[in-house]
Amino acid sequence: MNAPDPLRPAASGGKIMLVGLGPGAHAHLTARARAAIAEADTVIGYVTYIRLVADLLEGKEVIRKSMTEELDRAIEALERARQGRKVALVSSGDAGVYGMAGPTFEVLFQAGWTPDSGIEVEIVPGASALNTCAALVGAPLTHDFCAISLSDLLTPWPTIARRLDAVAYADFVVALYNPKSGRRTRQIVEAQRLFLRHRRPDTPVAIVKSAYRPKQRIEFTTLARMAEADIGMLTTVLIGNSNTFVRDGLMVTPRGYSNKYEVAAGERATRDGERAGRSLSTGLEGWLQAIRASGVDAAQLAAEYRLPQDYIATLLAEPADEATGAAEAPPEAAV
Amino acid sequence: MNAPDPLRPAASGGKIMLVGLGPGAHAHLTARARAAIAEADTVIGYVTYIRLVADLLEGKEVIRKSMTEELDRAIEALERARQGRKVALVSSGDAGVYGMAGPTFEVLFQAGWTPDSGIEVEIVPGASALNTCAALVGAPLTHDFCAISLSDLLTPWPTIARRLDAVAYADFVVALYNPKSGRRTRQIVEAQRLFLRHRRPDTPVAIVKSAYRPKQRIEFTTLARMAEADIGMLTTVLIGNSNTFVRDGLMVTPRGYSNKYEVAAGERATRDGERAGRSLSTGLEGWLQAIRASGVDAAQLAAEYRLPQDYIATLLAEPADEATGAAEAPPEAAV
Repeated sequence: MNAPDPLRPAASGGKIMLVGLGPGAHAHLTARARAAIAEADTVIGYVTYIRLVADLLEGKEVIRKSMTEELDRAIEALERARQGRKVALVSSGDAGVYGMAGPTFEVLFQAGWTPDSGIEVEIVPGASALNTCAALVGAPLTHDFCAISLSDLLTPWPTIARRLDAVAYADFVVALYNPKSGRRTRQIVEAQRLFLRHRRPDTPVAIVKSAYRPKQRIEFTTLARMAEADIGMLTTVLIGNSNTFVRDGLMVTPRGYSNKYEVAAGERATRDGERAGRSLSTGLEGWLQAIRASGVDAAQLAAEYRLPQDYIATLLAEPADEATGAAEAPPEAAV
Repeated sequence: MNAPDPLRPAASGGKIMLVGLGPGAHAHLTARARAAIAEADTVIGYVTYIRLVADLLEGKEVIRKSMTEELDRAIEALERARQGRKVALVSSGDAGVYGMAGPTFEVLFQAGWTPDSGIEVEIVPGASALNTCAALVGAPLTHDFCAISLSDLLTPWPTIARRLDAVAYADFVVALYNPKSGRRTRQIVEAQRLFLRHRRPDTPVAIVKSAYRPKQRIEFTTLARMAEADIGMLTTVLIGNSNTFVRDGLMVTPRGYSNKYEVAAGERATRDGERAGRSLSTGLEGWLQAIRASGVDAAQLAAEYRLPQDYIATLLAEPADEATGAAEAPPEAAV
């Protein structure tokens, strides 16, 4: 993008609100999202998102755009805001997650906008597809996770493939956005292939379509069968990590309490060698002490722990007292 | 965890609601979160979370727990639900993201609970710290991202380090949860060290404390200076990808529109060789054709594209017509 349109003076009071609708059902709108729509003179969005809030739009100018017109939506919002209008750009999920917040700032900066130039911008956060799909299937995101869009409309495939490979290797829970479309059918097959190089074929996978909407559908499958599932543009695919399990129709990723506690008869007891509210014995400090005391060299430790050899070598070369954290502090969250 | 407490028969009507409060300010509560709290007889949570909704709790039994007592909170919720009570387990952010949903299902399964055993479980999704911190700093999550907790209280350090290394390499935007505490001060330094092996020292970093709460504080810094920032238990750290920039106090990760479009004078034009609503020329199909036509061997391609050599070799060995997606379909979202 270049050759910006010189910013014409804005009428006062213009505002752009980037509103995340969450899954779309009114029950999952935040108070601020609802108020932002009420406050708007103009509401702009992809036709499907406009439909989700149709009953809140009486008396407002409504601009419906097609899916590929993100930049046009942002340009139109800027035009209206320059006329002093309050504009709500609505997105399902969170406006910041693969949403309109990015393209809007790109267009605004291109046009010479600054936060002081008379047009206010507010982002109203909402629950993203990650959160809503997770809430419907159980507790898959209780440990480290990531989101990857399989759409190659704006991202080169090697970038996407490199990310899939990295997070499959490092055992993240993964949410695939835009997994498949009428035309893009092979990306999910390639994602599966890259995952199967690192993960067990029986790794649990949840396929969630139209979360919290009338056509909601949830299917549990496995990595080995993932590509055969009914997947489309309104689907989010959740791939578990190596500890994730499905039981009684619920997908759960354990946080790791069993590394530290035993629970029996409604009571919890701390395992030998572990302390409540403190780092694990295999946490950073304990692990550093162990690798230093082991006498094993960096190459072998790197292979054992699947970490870069130069990183291990740097740690081994440091004086041991570097390893000491703040001496006394209250116990902290177990998460 | 083993030796489950045999499930005593539950009184009818018992329910556990796992309620994500979002950042905590009432404006960002969803209608359903508010209704779930209103419906509850008993509200259980970490003292800080209870304080966020204190004015909604009149006439309810309120059980305040300390940070390390996640399992106790879940055990207590189950006890109450067995007595036929409706219990809201409140969490800031989303109850599924490093939240109470995981430990609750672990405790329930341990006790022999099933979805048909008379106690209903509902998860009420909310905006996680990821979403709310992103909304305050601009649009950092417009491309692939991940969340990693630096807490080693339940996760061995080599697991955390491996994940940091993988996502730094694969150029994700990264949100660090639980980056530092009074006692755990070195994890953020190690995270920085692992990132600097792959990322530029001037990679933008946003430090967000107490988002949408009275003590909210936002600081922009760089990867090189990240560890010097004022970081605590109420802080989320957002590290940009290689395209993320900060301008006028806003952190933005471009979606990649400039790979496909030029925007000038308020109009967008498609770049040579690209088509609106279609995969990039460097997308999966285009890239496959290019590497096949190149005559370059798998080892060299693997080095060039930083992808596993056996993956490239598999692709090269496949017949070319495998590469064809569905022939005709409408254009799809640009994201």
